[in-house]
Amino acid sequence: MSALFRFDVLARAGRARRGRLQLPHGDVETPAFMPVGTRAAVKGVTSEMLVDLGAEIVLANTYHLHLRPGDDLIARLGGLHTFMGWSRPMLTDSGGYQVFSLASRRTLSEDGVVFQSHLDGRSYKLTPESAVDIQSRLGADITMTLDECPSWPATERDVDAAVSRTLRWARRARTRFDALRSGGVTDVARPTPGQVQFGIVQGGTYPHLREASAAGTVGIGFDGYAIGGLSVGEPIDAMLETAAKTAALLPADQPRYLMGVGTPSDLIQAVARGIDLFDCVLPTRNARNGQLFTRHGPLNIRNARYAEDPRPIDAECGCPTCRHYSRAYLRHLAMAGEIGSSTLNTVHNLFFYLDTMGSIRKAIEFGTVEDLERTFLEAYSRRQPTSDD
Amino acid sequence: MSALFRFDVLARAGRARRGRLQLPHGDVETPAFMPVGTRAAVKGVTSEMLVDLGAEIVLANTYHLHLRPGDDLIARLGGLHTFMGWSRPMLTDSGGYQVFSLASRRTLSEDGVVFQSHLDGRSYKLTPESAVDIQSRLGADITMTLDECPSWPATERDVDAAVSRTLRWARRARTRFDALRSGGVTDVARPTPGQVQFGIVQGGTYPHLREASAAGTVGIGFDGYAIGGLSVGEPIDAMLETAAKTAALLPADQPRYLMGVGTPSDLIQAVARGIDLFDCVLPTRNARNGQLFTRHGPLNIRNARYAEDPRPIDAECGCPTCRHYSRAYLRHLAMAGEIGSSTLNTVHNLFFYLDTMGSIRKAIEFGTVEDLERTFLEAYSRRQPTSDD
Repeated sequence: MSALFRFDVLARAGRARRGRLQLPHGDVETPAFMPVGTRAAVKGVTSEMLVDLGAEIVLANTYHLHLRPGDDLIARLGGLHTFMGWSRPMLTDSGGYQVFSLASRRTLSEDGVVFQSHLDGRSYKLTPESAVDIQSRLGADITMTLDECPSWPATERDVDAAVSRTLRWARRARTRFDALRSGGVTDVARPTPGQVQFGIVQGGTYPHLREASAAGTVGIGFDGYAIGGLSVGEPIDAMLETAAKTAALLPADQPRYLMGVGTPSDLIQAVARGIDLFDCVLPTRNARNGQLFTRHGPLNIRNARYAEDPRPIDAECGCPTCRHYSRAYLRHLAMAGEIGSSTLNTVHNLFFYLDTMGSIRKAIEFGTVEDLERTFLEAYSRRQPTSDD
Repeated sequence: MSALFRFDVLARAGRARRGRLQLPHGDVETPAFMPVGTRAAVKGVTSEMLVDLGAEIVLANTYHLHLRPGDDLIARLGGLHTFMGWSRPMLTDSGGYQVFSLASRRTLSEDGVVFQSHLDGRSYKLTPESAVDIQSRLGADITMTLDECPSWPATERDVDAAVSRTLRWARRARTRFDALRSGGVTDVARPTPGQVQFGIVQGGTYPHLREASAAGTVGIGFDGYAIGGLSVGEPIDAMLETAAKTAALLPADQPRYLMGVGTPSDLIQAVARGIDLFDCVLPTRNARNGQLFTRHGPLNIRNARYAEDPRPIDAECGCPTCRHYSRAYLRHLAMAGEIGSSTLNTVHNLFFYLDTMGSIRKAIEFGTVEDLERTFLEAYSRRQPTSDD
């Protein structure tokens, strides 16, 4: 573990942890939500707006950036932070999830995966080693190992095979990562000082496979651990139960990241089950479709009932959108297809997510996280399609 | 003229004027450029970003807002300023230009113009009186009279007829405006206190028709005067010559607004010919297409030569985009179709326009506007498609 990396659990409430992640580009207060900046940009907002919103860490997608504009180009321009004008911590994924969900004509082998770009059909190969190299060139604070993520539903046999392969790939990824850090590789730039690597636990919703995957991954030894293969279609209860059981198998003094999760109620429930880090496209993607999150549940601003509504999205919200604009104006922008609709809606949704994480952190400090979970879920399910919202 | 309205010429340099326009929602230093917020939003930026960019006045389009969401709705929500979260001065056009350029199945008569919405085919009627009423409900600081704008090229006979009709409509518009202000109309809300009305001079590029139109319009008496019917396809020299001759026919102590103009070099040349106010979609529309304005001429950020260019758009520019992002990153965003491309490019282009107007104002104060015009035009034409930019 690098001297620039450190994770401290500052407080606990039940299984919930209030922590601080120290990374080369700054501190991240956990539990934390990471806005998704797929192509080195969080859609709808600028990097300065993200700073104003209080985002402490952003995720970018290795698959997308490898294809365009290319990690070589980004490295020559000084790395991802410089490239996108973001000086705070970043995490890059391994690219595996997008290869499995976006790329066409995919051929999986023990060596890695050969796929065609969804942009232009060009052929690429991603291996556990090349995923490390690409992320080294991108220069994020936290990098992820290449994993095999089975689709949902999958047979136990398939999940078992994916767990085994993910473990073998994790070993190769760690070896490559160590080699890069020690200067033992000459054709790839050495990673950002302090760059760390998280391993990924797979195993679907099969407890014994999660156990095997967690034991093997922890055995290799990473700077932190992600729980992958969830939020891919399984029921929410199964997701939460698996997250809880898997979190309990991970080292108490290291960060735990639940990949691709989730709704506001998912977040608070997962925190109560021991999760520290999250990423999800929901707040940004849904903003562009007009879905706005509030403490009383989501609303769709395109609904005709908001046409003359002079109120802000959420009267209790302190975000710039709620401070300056009415639901009527936001509906007008959405109906007219104005770019500003995406921007103002994204600002609100990200503020809501980040603000909710702040409330969760406070509740853990005060030991009231179970109260928060109950009252939050109660309020969040209150909005009815026919109510006066 | 309202007590809340005042125009002072603070300095002159040749025919150029350095003025201050006092309006109900604040002061506008002239010569000024008005960003265009067609549908109550300047595409790509929020109202707060416009304030940060130093925009002192914004234009919105009566035609678009009348169709959607409707001026009645905007009035019930407190008017355009409240609706769009913009507390500084605004100008609304009369809707005429869009009726002539966008609407389908247009029937023009002495009474007004019947047209079908380009959105849903619904039929609408716009008259000199209803254009006043709609703008009264929208509540901008400056309103415009309905004019007939002939397309280019047009015969002298057609332009002559348009000038005559525009004058008759201007008289009706002024009568209606006065009736609203005096409380003599009960079915329309009284206008925003201090709301003023500008008349529009037509006449194409025919000097004697411009003279007749100016004399007639000034004879009716408005709070300011616009030069319409230019920048519709005529050569730039004809535009500048007509603007210069028409400006000379207008009262020396009242503001002069050249509608729909123009490029940065158009602006400086028109100021030198006595113009005080401008609006144009160029900085915002071209930003979305990747054309960025610089003091060395425009560049298109999509060009492959910028793929690895670490420099800002313009090294001398102080805008947030140039302070934080490279040409390489902006090209990446443009090629990837990211929303952020529109936002960051629009911020730069608007900053460039507003900053250029600031330099022009300073040059008038220092009496060096002719030097600025020469050096600006020289530098602006310097960029060659093959040069190292």
